[in-house]
Amino acid sequence: MSARNTLANIRIVLIQTSHPGNIGSAARAMKTMGLSELYLVKPKSFPDEQAVTMSSNATDILENATVVDSVQDALAGCHLVVGTSARHERTLAWEVLEPRECSQKITKQTKTGGVAILFGRENSGLTNDELALCHYLVHIPTNPDYSSLNLASAVQILSYECRVASETGDSQTKADETEEVATADAMEGYYKHLETAMIESKFLDPETPKHLMTRLRRLYGRVKVTPSELNILRGMLVAFQKKK
Amino acid sequence: MSARNTLANIRIVLIQTSHPGNIGSAARAMKTMGLSELYLVKPKSFPDEQAVTMSSNATDILENATVVDSVQDALAGCHLVVGTSARHERTLAWEVLEPRECSQKITKQTKTGGVAILFGRENSGLTNDELALCHYLVHIPTNPDYSSLNLASAVQILSYECRVASETGDSQTKADETEEVATADAMEGYYKHLETAMIESKFLDPETPKHLMTRLRRLYGRVKVTPSELNILRGMLVAFQKKK
Repeated sequence: MSARNTLANIRIVLIQTSHPGNIGSAARAMKTMGLSELYLVKPKSFPDEQAVTMSSNATDILENATVVDSVQDALAGCHLVVGTSARHERTLAWEVLEPRECSQKITKQTKTGGVAILFGRENSGLTNDELALCHYLVHIPTNPDYSSLNLASAVQILSYECRVASETGDSQTKADETEEVATADAMEGYYKHLETAMIESKFLDPETPKHLMTRLRRLYGRVKVTPSELNILRGMLVAFQKKK
Repeated sequence: MSARNTLANIRIVLIQTSHPGNIGSAARAMKTMGLSELYLVKPKSFPDEQAVTMSSNATDILENATVVDSVQDALAGCHLVVGTSARHERTLAWEVLEPRECSQKITKQTKTGGVAILFGRENSGLTNDELALCHYLVHIPTNPDYSSLNLASAVQILSYECRVASETGDSQTKADETEEVATADAMEGYYKHLETAMIESKFLDPETPKHLMTRLRRLYGRVKVTPSELNILRGMLVAFQKKK
């Protein structure tokens, strides 16, 4: 299943959002990450010009958004419900997950059915009745001294994590970038050349070599020089040697 | 080292930001994740009322922001420079990392020195000269059909990943690879010196430079040269220059 299909099964549910601008920013955040299904539970003002402005051309998300009167209506057809929580609800019986772990669970679930992620009111979050509808809670880690995460920023981070989880799920078989590296022989040729040039220039005294070559081998060994880079390094040495 | 100290060593550098509101939103995004050091390179308008409004009480970040005239000035004292890129720069030799892997490298580096994350202009990103200053690029995965990630959203996601990495890094207390890396200033000094020596030796024709410096910057940028290795490289250049 492609990332696209996986992400299409994730529904973002915004509950009683006060600022229509936040709905627009959330739509933009969703779309950048490939999410498309937006449900709005009793938004204060929608449709609204400010939402359109803040959506920055993610207007299709707004046009296709479903406005409903109750959270239950927003969950129709979903098999997994995740609630976002600004607090670490440690005293409660809910399992509180980090975004990363949560997104992995969400991605797994999308292969067989829909998932809803609930975002509460800007000021007061989710009510206890809404929390009771959730299978898990997810908490985005924040600075304990300033946890003022904007609604759209929370949507952005969770959408991003869902995208990363869906891509990772897809392509564990990523043909790992096999950039060409100069052969060991070619590097040996360079080290000999470098040593000669250093002796000629009197930078290296063969009587007291002070591990210079060892240190330079370590340096260039770490970098994994490509064949074309090695050509530059050797050409430069030739030029330095010729210099009158 | 606590997450707090790790995050204090991460500098967010915004280059020629057009919309002051984006600077404010970026400050808020940083603060929610515990980052505090903001550098602004030639912002179009700063200080600005709109920045304050959008910062939502993260005004301390704005008040302490450092405004500079050049990217080089914004990198003073940083040992690792990471550039954000909207495109997957597959054709270039830069190593392009995912935010997750990148944040792990950043967190490791913060244990011994400062790290700068560069964000380019809203419309055009980073210039080639700015890219050349970076050790790595980081690319936030987005919807290929709509990759319109807001500047502050990009700051939010990378700050979030840095926070998660620093919290994870804490619990692992991995003491490995804390080797010192030469500062960006010191590397710039080396590149200038190298360029001069190459021109003197006629290896580099300033009229037709053929990306030579760019390629060498990429090579040495990848390797993370230590201060003592840099001494060797510079000493060698001096010897090559003196050679009769």
